[in-house]
Amino acid sequence: MFKPECIENREVHKGRILTFYKKTMKFENGDTAEWDFIHHNGAAAVVAVDEDGKLFMVKQYRPGCDRFTLEIPAGCLNPGEDRKTAAVRELEEETGYRCAKAELLNKYYPASAYDDEYIEIYLATGLTKTAQNLDPDEDVEVIKMDVEELVSKILSCEISDGKTIAGVLTYYTRIKR
Amino acid sequence: MFKPECIENREVHKGRILTFYKKTMKFENGDTAEWDFIHHNGAAAVVAVDEDGKLFMVKQYRPGCDRFTLEIPAGCLNPGEDRKTAAVRELEEETGYRCAKAELLNKYYPASAYDDEYIEIYLATGLTKTAQNLDPDEDVEVIKMDVEELVSKILSCEISDGKTIAGVLTYYTRIKR
Repeated sequence: MFKPECIENREVHKGRILTFYKKTMKFENGDTAEWDFIHHNGAAAVVAVDEDGKLFMVKQYRPGCDRFTLEIPAGCLNPGEDRKTAAVRELEEETGYRCAKAELLNKYYPASAYDDEYIEIYLATGLTKTAQNLDPDEDVEVIKMDVEELVSKILSCEISDGKTIAGVLTYYTRIKR
Repeated sequence: MFKPECIENREVHKGRILTFYKKTMKFENGDTAEWDFIHHNGAAAVVAVDEDGKLFMVKQYRPGCDRFTLEIPAGCLNPGEDRKTAAVRELEEETGYRCAKAELLNKYYPASAYDDEYIEIYLATGLTKTAQNLDPDEDVEVIKMDVEELVSKILSCEISDGKTIAGVLTYYTRIKR
């Protein structure tokens, strides 16, 4: 297969967390096309499981769907931060729980057709209570849920967040298979 | 919980498939913040399963990760098209197979923190051979795979596409649970 070549990458708008580019792509037959492209610094998320097998979920407002969603804890990377560090930090900031262990559960591109956001999801265990520490524009409610209940909600299409579907089902498949 | 209010929604760049907005959000304490926001028209994807239980996968170049990915068939909506119609159409265009039945498997927002893209994934069965019909800038290789092999690849983090992880694991959990 021929890999299309990016012959021009023009920045059209630089935002706070996203940058919009126009990529001119050249194909095998010599034709070109302009592709919209978003640069994002990356993200990390956490499936945090307590001693009773309950998962720490957060409820928060999301502008993409303009409503409150039930999600696994997650966030953007701080400058220079790796994804594992970000996952552990976001877990503590959003839920007020620190983990003793974090191991990679999955990693993927949420919208690789036009966006370079890359996310790693960690499985966090050995949780101990500290304190929530939210960003100024964050308002988060923490809810502990049984994995079977959460999987039922995923299968009945009640979970609208992609990383939560990917993270919870990866965890569930790993423990059940 | 307080739902942040969008007090201004300013278009900063309109692309071919994406539009970049700056949303001014107002919070419970009266503070405001500017959030980057992407509008996308929406997408559809298909877990297509043949009589032997094999899944139709496509290999194609994706600019987000700048490499070839193994994915379930998917694409953007045509103007006025609903997601089920788009799913069935994309399946036939990309793989050259028409389905007799398509039922909703899952639906979610891939990046709801900053993007309104909403995707529905359908389970397609009753497949009959027609012909591939690709867009001018598409180059797609079709690969049939066993679901167990695909789930193994997901658990070993070899699948880098979010909708493929969500779609395949939803299907797998549904048939195994």
